[in-house]
Amino acid sequence: MAVSMPSIYLVFTILFWCHERTHLMASREENNIASSSFNILKESHAIREILAYETVARLDHLGKVSDAENYLERTFLSPAALKAGKLIQDWMIDAGLNTADGLMKLGTYMDTVIGAGKYDGALGIVTAIAAVKSLNKKGKLFRFPRPIEIIAFSDEEGIRFQSTFLGSAAIAGTLSTQLLSVRDKSGTTLRDSLHQASLKGSEESLLHLKYDKFAVWGYIEVHIEQGPVLEFKKIPLGVVEAIAGQTRLKVTLQGLQGHAGTVPMLMRKDPMPAAAKAILHIEELCTKRGDDNEKASSHIDSTAQLVCTVGEISSWPGASNVIPGQVVFTVDIRSRDDYLREETVLKIESNIHNVARARALSYNIERKHEAKAVKCDSELTHRLKAAAKSGISKFLDSEVSDIPLLTSGAGHDAMAMARLTKVGMIFVRCTGGISHSPAEHVLEDDIGAASSALLSFLEHELDLLDS
Amino acid sequence: MAVSMPSIYLVFTILFWCHERTHLMASREENNIASSSFNILKESHAIREILAYETVARLDHLGKVSDAENYLERTFLSPAALKAGKLIQDWMIDAGLNTADGLMKLGTYMDTVIGAGKYDGALGIVTAIAAVKSLNKKGKLFRFPRPIEIIAFSDEEGIRFQSTFLGSAAIAGTLSTQLLSVRDKSGTTLRDSLHQASLKGSEESLLHLKYDKFAVWGYIEVHIEQGPVLEFKKIPLGVVEAIAGQTRLKVTLQGLQGHAGTVPMLMRKDPMPAAAKAILHIEELCTKRGDDNEKASSHIDSTAQLVCTVGEISSWPGASNVIPGQVVFTVDIRSRDDYLREETVLKIESNIHNVARARALSYNIERKHEAKAVKCDSELTHRLKAAAKSGISKFLDSEVSDIPLLTSGAGHDAMAMARLTKVGMIFVRCTGGISHSPAEHVLEDDIGAASSALLSFLEHELDLLDS
Repeated sequence: MAVSMPSIYLVFTILFWCHERTHLMASREENNIASSSFNILKESHAIREILAYETVARLDHLGKVSDAENYLERTFLSPAALKAGKLIQDWMIDAGLNTADGLMKLGTYMDTVIGAGKYDGALGIVTAIAAVKSLNKKGKLFRFPRPIEIIAFSDEEGIRFQSTFLGSAAIAGTLSTQLLSVRDKSGTTLRDSLHQASLKGSEESLLHLKYDKFAVWGYIEVHIEQGPVLEFKKIPLGVVEAIAGQTRLKVTLQGLQGHAGTVPMLMRKDPMPAAAKAILHIEELCTKRGDDNEKASSHIDSTAQLVCTVGEISSWPGASNVIPGQVVFTVDIRSRDDYLREETVLKIESNIHNVARARALSYNIERKHEAKAVKCDSELTHRLKAAAKSGISKFLDSEVSDIPLLTSGAGHDAMAMARLTKVGMIFVRCTGGISHSPAEHVLEDDIGAASSALLSFLEHELDLLDS
Repeated sequence: MAVSMPSIYLVFTILFWCHERTHLMASREENNIASSSFNILKESHAIREILAYETVARLDHLGKVSDAENYLERTFLSPAALKAGKLIQDWMIDAGLNTADGLMKLGTYMDTVIGAGKYDGALGIVTAIAAVKSLNKKGKLFRFPRPIEIIAFSDEEGIRFQSTFLGSAAIAGTLSTQLLSVRDKSGTTLRDSLHQASLKGSEESLLHLKYDKFAVWGYIEVHIEQGPVLEFKKIPLGVVEAIAGQTRLKVTLQGLQGHAGTVPMLMRKDPMPAAAKAILHIEELCTKRGDDNEKASSHIDSTAQLVCTVGEISSWPGASNVIPGQVVFTVDIRSRDDYLREETVLKIESNIHNVARARALSYNIERKHEAKAVKCDSELTHRLKAAAKSGISKFLDSEVSDIPLLTSGAGHDAMAMARLTKVGMIFVRCTGGISHSPAEHVLEDDIGAASSALLSFLEHELDLLDS
């Protein structure tokens, strides 16, 4: 299964749909490696600077590149997204990555939710850059046996086109070309938005992005935990065992629009209280199952639970003196247990059916997104645990008896990449488990430990090949 | 109290805040008049044409003057509102109304809700024009003893600036000058929107609009019922006894924004299910009281009931994969019983307090609008009943034993005008009681009966003065 590479070659990709890929990670047969062989020498001051202080400064810098004035927002192909892409490109060059192969047709990257925190997404890119830069400073980058790509994916969050993992799914070859015709809220199609940014948006260019399964060795992602487990356990890093599956619904309830002052309560066909009833049922359903799960797993692991969220709601025509004719809301359902998730979706759908029927409303439920739970590669997970332990030891000078294995309740590009290659993820502790919020925070020490863990992983790989 | 007028003079006003008023209705002492003195001769074909067919055609025409492509929307000072104003101006001239006194600084008028029907508001203007035009055709207009103004008020609905009765409150002298600084959704102040339309928006020009209480005789308004009573009773016209009081609330629930996949259900501070709980409570509270009222009044009179509506809702940041940090919704509460309305508002506020407290959310409740119930003038109501009976008899050639007396659940400019002068209202039956909706419909015969009732009222007034 090995793909031979003519020489050691380092590239990076700012993923975009028009680029020409010339270099990939080489796949090779792996030996079984004892994690105890990790180097535990402390890092020099210069390397620590790169792993933590510079990385934190870069996160702060990126956190200010926003399309909005008072909060962080970078959606697909927005001015801030393009600006942030240019910034990362500079940092990649500074890290010693090769940019001379025509890959610099910069597109969007690293989108955020609206009102976002500065670590979500960004942390994975800057820590990867820090690890590679450190490897370079140590003179080891050009000795590395296979190409390393650091990829800043486009539209992981799915805010603009309501479809997640645009970038990673394109690389994994699972992105439907029909998505090119999907429209954002302003009515612009994905195809047109690509053209407006002088990028190719054809079906052909989309299909061209697909990586060759046999040429890729593996995929590793660092991300904030976005949950409370690591904070609870007082450990800076964890390793992900599985990523929860997700279903996203768009529910439309249709009634009879009318005058707020004149239609008697009993003669109304108002979708608003019906939506309220459905939303309360969803909370009740998922809170109950969430409890069961928590009891069963007998420890606080938010990510094993069932979680359901109604994040978006609107009424039509949306005036205080008009009984709405229509209410639309979204439902987001996640669980590591695909059967439980599907069972929950069916219960939600059946309840909406009953609520609508009792009130003579019509309704429509659209499944906007569906992703099965994904298991991370067990060997990669095993090695990432050792790397995390080494990173904490080397950067924080403290020993951790065991690195927690977690389930990720959040979706990640790793979900899409799992269709292409083996995947592994490191989680970084975040304050209060808060993310998708300006209150999102990660300790500087923890950022250093994460970069250090990635560096350890790369160095260990090098040691293995040298030996 | 009589104000003498130098001569019989007919004017019309497209109400606007920059016009110079030169002529008003003269006030005079009224005799007690028996309603049996109404003329019951059938109208000629030419007059019937004006009262019904031309009026219906004009409603259809106006119903197509919209700012939106697929539904009817004319908000304060919008392009469609200005265009509709010009159209009405032409029809007023055609009716024989005087336009030579510098009142033609045309502004907006006759706003609609969004996704509106074509009768709400418009019906009162076109039937008034039809009645005056008929009076003119009969050669009686110049014999009329006091000036008649037909006023197309600005922003009755309160869609653009979230404040109702802008025009009528200005004329009644009850409009606060602070409103000039209120902003629409785009951030434009009322003052600036007036300036943009080349109209004066100063506090002085606003105060100048106020009519002199002693110079105005009375105010009559024709409107679709917007409720089901007349249809239920199979009678085309009714007369309004009272207009329900209103309270409009803006409720903000504030929680903790977070990632939809990672925050366990029990650790959430999600304002969405809290809003759902509050909305269901509001429905329950008002449906119950509505029932009581209905039983008490022992007939279907929607307008006597308590009605509550949540018409508008939104979440922040409003993404399917983010637990909202904030949910905002409106509540509209109406009743002819001011004590019951206030009691209901207090119960709603207290429930929101409890819901927020149980979930550790913060909240804010703003009273955006408050209007007491208004009683119509009993003598005017008595005469309008006779006029309605006469109109039905003359136009439809059918006898009605009694004209129903109704309470209006909807607010009307008559509420504001009641602060200035005595008011009376005629309601016109509408299909299914539906309004504020494209499905709004009024029968052509009923429109004819309404115009005919107004004409009867005017002719009877003339007969009284002649005798």
